[in-house]
Amino acid sequence: MKLLEDRIRQDGLVLPGDVLKVDAFLNHQVDPELMQAMGEEFGRLFKDEHITKVLTVESSGIAPAIMTALALKVPMIFARKHKSLTLTDNLYTAQVYSYTKRVNNDISIDKRFVDDNDRVLIIDDFLANGQAVKGLMEICQAANVEIGGVGVVIEKSFQKGHQMVLDAGIHLEALASVASLADNQVTFVDEL
Amino acid sequence: MKLLEDRIRQDGLVLPGDVLKVDAFLNHQVDPELMQAMGEEFGRLFKDEHITKVLTVESSGIAPAIMTALALKVPMIFARKHKSLTLTDNLYTAQVYSYTKRVNNDISIDKRFVDDNDRVLIIDDFLANGQAVKGLMEICQAANVEIGGVGVVIEKSFQKGHQMVLDAGIHLEALASVASLADNQVTFVDEL
Repeated sequence: MKLLEDRIRQDGLVLPGDVLKVDAFLNHQVDPELMQAMGEEFGRLFKDEHITKVLTVESSGIAPAIMTALALKVPMIFARKHKSLTLTDNLYTAQVYSYTKRVNNDISIDKRFVDDNDRVLIIDDFLANGQAVKGLMEICQAANVEIGGVGVVIEKSFQKGHQMVLDAGIHLEALASVASLADNQVTFVDEL
Repeated sequence: MKLLEDRIRQDGLVLPGDVLKVDAFLNHQVDPELMQAMGEEFGRLFKDEHITKVLTVESSGIAPAIMTALALKVPMIFARKHKSLTLTDNLYTAQVYSYTKRVNNDISIDKRFVDDNDRVLIIDDFLANGQAVKGLMEICQAANVEIGGVGVVIEKSFQKGHQMVLDAGIHLEALASVASLADNQVTFVDEL
């Protein structure tokens, strides 16, 4: 998505350790018109997947997910992160390891909001090692819910999340696919 | 806002301890068309306030805030919650006490995203004791930013947050104002 690639080039910051900081427009300060355009693009990309719910995880996934849900005219659910719970009877729960924070968190959704008639689109801001998306996929499996696709705003295609989603046979779309962050430069896959 | 009051009556759950659970459409599963309608309503209510940024706090404020920012054509910033930090040089930070979780958390925003030319609209899902809104107001004060208004989706007008915002001389709008949750019944202020 050219609009997004241009914005990453303009306002993204590349930091040591292959970190791409996009807090000026995506995950701290957020550009609502860009989010709307991205939601419409996800809507177009997944329009034939018969999606009944959009699923994301708090917090950075919420803005793109709500705009995607608006485009597809379906509800959005955001999984909540928390320390491991003892009472989980009414929740579908998965464990997610955060490489940036180096902690395990549980994520969960309430069982009332999905059932085996649902076909879910997973949306997130980043796909890198794929831990958050893997957790959401595990929740879908536990809920016996079909996954109609995974849509991420930015993927780092050189990390393992990309292949993990493809290996699961899932329709994957990234609005911007980063091939390299070497030498403090963003190189997109479609520039190679 | 009649659309919202009807939805609260239909899908809200009143639990012991004056808890109104609206996780079916607002803060876990989220109805995107309702969020859009609410964002447009906040846009209308604050259209003369010369708002330059919408400010909220993760996570439940993000969906209504991004739709409000879209209506007002300004950026949205969501403050992040975390345990108390040692390094806060580049952050505006405030402490927020959560009555439901009984813990203190810091919330913060990056100093790069506001300056003294800004006039901010604070948006949140709930106004009850007003701790989150108070924290956001403190951040605005520290940043020397004017507050053009506070917009909340649901307020419990019988708790102290409502008066706290008014006492600060701030333009307050609630899309649904709950007067009482006695006897497991929602009574709105405009029904009294």
